[in-house]
Amino acid sequence: MSTTPRAAPVPEPPTWADVQAAADLLDGVAHRTPVVTSRRLDELAGCQVFLKAEHLQRVGAFKFRGAYTALSRLAGTRREAGVVAYSSGNHAQAVALAARELGIPATIVMPHDAPAAKVAATQGYGAAVVRYDRYREDREEIGRRIAQESGATVVPPYDHPDVIAGQGTAVKELLEEVPDLDAVVTPLGGGGLLAGSLLSVAALAPEAEVWGVEPEAGDDARRSIAAGQIVRIETPRTIADGAQTLALGELTFPIIRDRVTGVVTASDDQLVGAMRVMATTLKQVVEPTGVLGLAAVLAGAVPCTPGGRVGVVLSGGNVDLERFATLVARQEGFA
Amino acid sequence: MSTTPRAAPVPEPPTWADVQAAADLLDGVAHRTPVVTSRRLDELAGCQVFLKAEHLQRVGAFKFRGAYTALSRLAGTRREAGVVAYSSGNHAQAVALAARELGIPATIVMPHDAPAAKVAATQGYGAAVVRYDRYREDREEIGRRIAQESGATVVPPYDHPDVIAGQGTAVKELLEEVPDLDAVVTPLGGGGLLAGSLLSVAALAPEAEVWGVEPEAGDDARRSIAAGQIVRIETPRTIADGAQTLALGELTFPIIRDRVTGVVTASDDQLVGAMRVMATTLKQVVEPTGVLGLAAVLAGAVPCTPGGRVGVVLSGGNVDLERFATLVARQEGFA
Repeated sequence: MSTTPRAAPVPEPPTWADVQAAADLLDGVAHRTPVVTSRRLDELAGCQVFLKAEHLQRVGAFKFRGAYTALSRLAGTRREAGVVAYSSGNHAQAVALAARELGIPATIVMPHDAPAAKVAATQGYGAAVVRYDRYREDREEIGRRIAQESGATVVPPYDHPDVIAGQGTAVKELLEEVPDLDAVVTPLGGGGLLAGSLLSVAALAPEAEVWGVEPEAGDDARRSIAAGQIVRIETPRTIADGAQTLALGELTFPIIRDRVTGVVTASDDQLVGAMRVMATTLKQVVEPTGVLGLAAVLAGAVPCTPGGRVGVVLSGGNVDLERFATLVARQEGFA
Repeated sequence: MSTTPRAAPVPEPPTWADVQAAADLLDGVAHRTPVVTSRRLDELAGCQVFLKAEHLQRVGAFKFRGAYTALSRLAGTRREAGVVAYSSGNHAQAVALAARELGIPATIVMPHDAPAAKVAATQGYGAAVVRYDRYREDREEIGRRIAQESGATVVPPYDHPDVIAGQGTAVKELLEEVPDLDAVVTPLGGGGLLAGSLLSVAALAPEAEVWGVEPEAGDDARRSIAAGQIVRIETPRTIADGAQTLALGELTFPIIRDRVTGVVTASDDQLVGAMRVMATTLKQVVEPTGVLGLAAVLAGAVPCTPGGRVGVVLSGGNVDLERFATLVARQEGFA
């Protein structure tokens, strides 16, 4: 018995060729987001930092890459029955927008207490929203039931070869623009972004280190690597709501285990500090999950020394403005 | 007697050739800032909007363009004696950084209650900071005295031909990247940015309209154009601290009077609304003065109708983060 039970067999893991194919699919559809630099940031970090600005991606997060890739590869016969996704976060909006772009019906299962703005945004992309009570109901079960009843295809947020391949295109672009990086650092929740990034680094910059950064309160990936198997945790208490995942996936875990240089963590205070640096020095609004990589660089948790060149993925910028204001105003004197 | 007394004669007004020369000086020194677009912003505005992102300029504002241009053109014999500027805002940091780049000593006269971060930033660029009591002393007099005693050259924030020419390079870049604009909209305080922009539009897009946007509480430019002469006002109460100017300059006024399509105003509430749109939709931190142009577009104060293409200068992003948080959190439901 596996530690993360699944009904279906695990599909073949994605390869570099899949990332390249995803890049072709995304060409002209996803934004080729800018790589941002700042002398002041380099001073603060201690090395040269190259920020891949995925908070400026469509729907405000890299998630659009994976969702659009997965939906594009749906067989024509399965498109009519539509897709279903469960998420209160960026994956929901990514699936909704990708579905609209491709003319595929989408149903998004969202908690009853999801922010009205997120529900409205998802509906604005033309998706049907099904609410559930997050304290009484299981969203995965609701999603599966909808899929069974309607024939719709479930689009998982990270443990899917096309999703992983799509997420890998962000670091592919980064390495095409800045080929000589010593390290690439990405946020880490379920592992889709990190696994895809590892495929791109292996192909384009095989000497570069790759670091994943998860919330201090939810260090399941670090523990999974140490244990040699997927460790499942309780929902971690962290402001990095996009990385409140309970476990790596059966596809993402082996890729990460086999290829990653290391997994480190960032505390909520470090995330707030990094958000402040982004706002004051770079004038950018990045969500807490989005600065996981940068926070680790600024804290010295990953190597960043004079002469070094480190690429960091800023994964998303979707944070309620009142929440952003509360977070960045609470900590004095960091930036 | 003029309404704005001056000891020195008014110099020759700048021309398009001066803007071109300034662009050459700034090449490789100032950032060629990106032009940013957003479908969601277009929906909110009602036309296609092209944002010239000068909040991403060095020192976080377009002011670096004018300051560097003016300092570059200082005769060699005057460089050793240094420069002096009085400002609590972006001009101070712009002069300080430009002086450091050019190896010119700089003295900045700042109020005793200027934010510590701004004083530190100015000193960080290597400038000497002279503090004054804003309730008892006259900063212009202090600046002139320092200039007289040391032989330093005063670098005014807007009423100087090289400063105007330098500011004009921002819209020059915008029009080179997006040549077919129907209108250009800029923030308006002392008029340096608007006057320089008018020179660039006249040369590169002579059919395009040009609108200046000043704070509702400080509509001296609108009144000056109506009166046919420079109208001087008391310090306006507005959150747009970069546009709390008392009057247009003797150089900027005639350029604006002769060439501008119109001057409109934006209220503080409209500025906060535009800041919220920038933060939520575009993930950008822009200071209140920086969104004057965008606020007017979103409020319909300047023409922006389906099919229209409007360029808007975002002039700066230097806002204390606690202040930003307080401002954007106070208005619900706009964006």
